[in-house]
Amino acid sequence: MPRVSQDQLDARRQEILTAARACFARHGYEGATVRRLEEATGLSRGAIFHHFRDKDSLFLAVAEDDAGAMVETVARNGLVQVMRDLLARAVSPDTTGWLGSQLEVSRRLRTDPAFAQRWAERSAAIAEATRERLIRQREAGVLREDVTIDVLARFLELAYDGLVLHLAMGRPAGEMGPVLDLVEEAVRRR
Amino acid sequence: MPRVSQDQLDARRQEILTAARACFARHGYEGATVRRLEEATGLSRGAIFHHFRDKDSLFLAVAEDDAGAMVETVARNGLVQVMRDLLARAVSPDTTGWLGSQLEVSRRLRTDPAFAQRWAERSAAIAEATRERLIRQREAGVLREDVTIDVLARFLELAYDGLVLHLAMGRPAGEMGPVLDLVEEAVRRR
Repeated sequence: MPRVSQDQLDARRQEILTAARACFARHGYEGATVRRLEEATGLSRGAIFHHFRDKDSLFLAVAEDDAGAMVETVARNGLVQVMRDLLARAVSPDTTGWLGSQLEVSRRLRTDPAFAQRWAERSAAIAEATRERLIRQREAGVLREDVTIDVLARFLELAYDGLVLHLAMGRPAGEMGPVLDLVEEAVRRR
Repeated sequence: MPRVSQDQLDARRQEILTAARACFARHGYEGATVRRLEEATGLSRGAIFHHFRDKDSLFLAVAEDDAGAMVETVARNGLVQVMRDLLARAVSPDTTGWLGSQLEVSRRLRTDPAFAQRWAERSAAIAEATRERLIRQREAGVLREDVTIDVLARFLELAYDGLVLHLAMGRPAGEMGPVLDLVEEAVRRR
């Protein structure tokens, strides 16, 4: 058996994540069967599950990877930008599946304590990035002063959750731009 | 077989709906097995499915009934009041199941065109009640004037969807009151 370096393992892991993301996006969690995951990755189930314990772990790894990317966008451009990106992506037919996966996450949170525990850490990272950016914005004087950072952060998170559910229900994305303007304006200094 | 009047049939139908709502609320859609629905209603499956074609139709009837009640509250007190009622109910442990059913609705909307068609009519009634109330509020001079009724309505609907997902994920309800104040304020004249 050839030696495989850690770099090669990491690269292979990342390839699987990318292909699996597309597969979950197209077919949703239930529809992304192991056979379809094999086709998407070009690997056998044995090779896939060498890197991820099971389909469940693979799904969670994709979701965590997405959450990690989200933390970066929030830190740089704020949660409203994440929502605008979501809208821009929503014109793609692949997004319905992705949103389905988001709803799958929310369903799992209610039914699977172990999943909820692992997810809580990621979710906390996004919440923290949101609050840190709001604090920087308040210091820069662009935020309204009469509402706490915490309430402003919860308000933005509410809008984000609403957008996820809106799009997941297949409602039109095109008319939501001005609504996000209203969300953004509501946290700013008048 | 004794003659049964239409009034008696309607009353029986309403009894089944009430018991089934509690059962879906406690166990979620999947968990509300036919056996549990029998226990909850005190009726045989034959009697239940005399009134509703199948579990699916029963679930949709409960959801439609809820939507009807929501239209009335929206017309009278607005969508923010519906959200406040939702928060108040969220302290009850039965609400998680109810919210699970709401997410079940959103899942079915993506996967079941016939369900989506029937649901669209109810959803349109809620959207219309929201817009009508906003128009009356604008005439009364309490709404901001720089944003269209349509964008204001979508904004409120976004917040409502966000609250449903927030609560369905089991996140705390207690801290959302001030967030709803912010939502309400965002649509009002400064």
